[in-house]
Amino acid sequence: MNLDDLIGQSGEWLRGSGPESDIVISSRVRLARNLARFPFLTRTNDEQRDEIHVSIKSALDHAGLVENGHCYVDLDQASDELTSRFLLERHLISRELANGTGGRGVLFNRSEMLAVMVNEEDHLRIQAIRAGFQVEDAHKDIARLDERLDATLEFAFSERFGYLTACPTNVGTGMRASVMLHLPALVFTKQIDKVFASVTKINLAVRGFYGEGTQASGDFFQISNQITLGIAEKEIMGLLDRVVPRIVAYEREVREHLLRKDRIRLEDRVWRALGTLQAARSINSEETMNLLSAVRLGVNCGLLDDVNISTVNELFILTQPAHLQRLKRRELDAGERDATRAEFIRRHLDL
Amino acid sequence: MNLDDLIGQSGEWLRGSGPESDIVISSRVRLARNLARFPFLTRTNDEQRDEIHVSIKSALDHAGLVENGHCYVDLDQASDELTSRFLLERHLISRELANGTGGRGVLFNRSEMLAVMVNEEDHLRIQAIRAGFQVEDAHKDIARLDERLDATLEFAFSERFGYLTACPTNVGTGMRASVMLHLPALVFTKQIDKVFASVTKINLAVRGFYGEGTQASGDFFQISNQITLGIAEKEIMGLLDRVVPRIVAYEREVREHLLRKDRIRLEDRVWRALGTLQAARSINSEETMNLLSAVRLGVNCGLLDDVNISTVNELFILTQPAHLQRLKRRELDAGERDATRAEFIRRHLDL
Repeated sequence: MNLDDLIGQSGEWLRGSGPESDIVISSRVRLARNLARFPFLTRTNDEQRDEIHVSIKSALDHAGLVENGHCYVDLDQASDELTSRFLLERHLISRELANGTGGRGVLFNRSEMLAVMVNEEDHLRIQAIRAGFQVEDAHKDIARLDERLDATLEFAFSERFGYLTACPTNVGTGMRASVMLHLPALVFTKQIDKVFASVTKINLAVRGFYGEGTQASGDFFQISNQITLGIAEKEIMGLLDRVVPRIVAYEREVREHLLRKDRIRLEDRVWRALGTLQAARSINSEETMNLLSAVRLGVNCGLLDDVNISTVNELFILTQPAHLQRLKRRELDAGERDATRAEFIRRHLDL
Repeated sequence: MNLDDLIGQSGEWLRGSGPESDIVISSRVRLARNLARFPFLTRTNDEQRDEIHVSIKSALDHAGLVENGHCYVDLDQASDELTSRFLLERHLISRELANGTGGRGVLFNRSEMLAVMVNEEDHLRIQAIRAGFQVEDAHKDIARLDERLDATLEFAFSERFGYLTACPTNVGTGMRASVMLHLPALVFTKQIDKVFASVTKINLAVRGFYGEGTQASGDFFQISNQITLGIAEKEIMGLLDRVVPRIVAYEREVREHLLRKDRIRLEDRVWRALGTLQAARSINSEETMNLLSAVRLGVNCGLLDDVNISTVNELFILTQPAHLQRLKRRELDAGERDATRAEFIRRHLDL
């Protein structure tokens, strides 16, 4: 599999339609793991770092993961910024891995629902991602992969603390479970802060579309567990299982209220967003995210019959800067990107 | 002719296509006249005011102006605000006449190219309006009408000062000649103030879409003579004949520059405007004017082939609040107006 194979479409988790997928975009579980025989990355030199990289690549090979249909991208060798940005935009790697230096890389499968980052903050970051609200299925995927790797690699583990990780916030299960929610009605009616205030009180964290430290964009929010120590994996998932359906119900309630009481304002916002996306000759990334969010809301509220929801979902990723540049096979300045983005959107939303 | 006959379309001067009509919307000449045997309106009582009104109506009758195809609207009797606003929106009466009290009215012909206001600031305000840049033709129309009225009515006239008027700024010829210009490119590129600075230096006044004291809206500007005393009618027209073509040339030059050097930004603005007008479910009057202005620019620059310029021109008038309310045959609150306006625009711009 070649990276260029990915350009035309997003990962399957974004195209798919899992439970509650009008509001829950995806469910993700990731595990942090480290090799017992090496220090954490904050304390390695370049040689050790490369040794870790090679060991893990070999283990991935033995685990049968670098098979046909999987893709390993060696970020040290690839080394061009565009590739890192491209993988980041697809949620296959983190900003930390993208911006890092030295031996590191990522393995992922064709559907992009499984990925292993090597030498990010920890030696290994394993993630499974599923469309819609399927945290437990994502957890099953990740547990299987973890077992296969465990058979080859000796992970740093303490009977007392559990898995040992570079940052104490990950010690224990090393697990973070998260769901990506699309909450345009709660944002539109300015009720989102109230939701987040209650969520953070029960030790859940709220992050933006591109994870830690990123802005909420396109009304997307990731909700994940804050704590990994002294809490079982089941408990983490249980917490999301209790909280997420309540947020989903709240968002639905506000949507229904808008449809009943403020229909013209809602229709106006939705139709203008679609009209602008179909008409613009130049559009930046932020405006695109916001307008696509309104269109997505419109489709899910039954206001826009002719728009395909998976087209809208994919456009969130495919209109990002590195995607447009890979599409055009060259670097584009900001003006060129905005014109290319507008043209790309028009082609995909031409009803 | 009934006022309801007017609802579906604007006056002919706006639909027509005179010289330079891509930039010069219309040319207008108006004369201020007063009856010699009555005081100015600032010094009349209600009875005298009514007497003036009756005398002039009778003269208009004798002049053969209240014939089939003409319309006289008695604003005292009509007395509902919506009718006044409706006539104001069509540029048939001034704000002063609309907001006035007591015996007053307006006569106009089917094409709306001739109109006589009775008991505005002066006893009579006669206007002729033509599509495009045709000040001299408008002047011929008005001169003919003035002669016919002069044959029946004795106007206040002094050998030394010329026609006497309620406000000294109109004494002399009593004439104001003006052209309505559409200057979106000069506004877009922020060069409009420079133009106006030079125009006002040579004793021309710049006003908005609805005349004295109104905001520039939709990038429309009226340019007219400031002085009526000690200057012949020919000189007033000569001044406009010299200045207007230079402004027109400047606007064209900037349009061509934009098309050559900043085409994507221009196209983006034009297409977004059209897209928004075609999509909105609620839109206020000001936004409508601004977007229509961009669409009008787009049509005249050859960027929007499928849009009819006279449709765009008419929408500037037909989307005004009183027009929408006459269309719906009832008063509408602001929210209803904005929704009605959006629907009306969509129907007319559905390509």
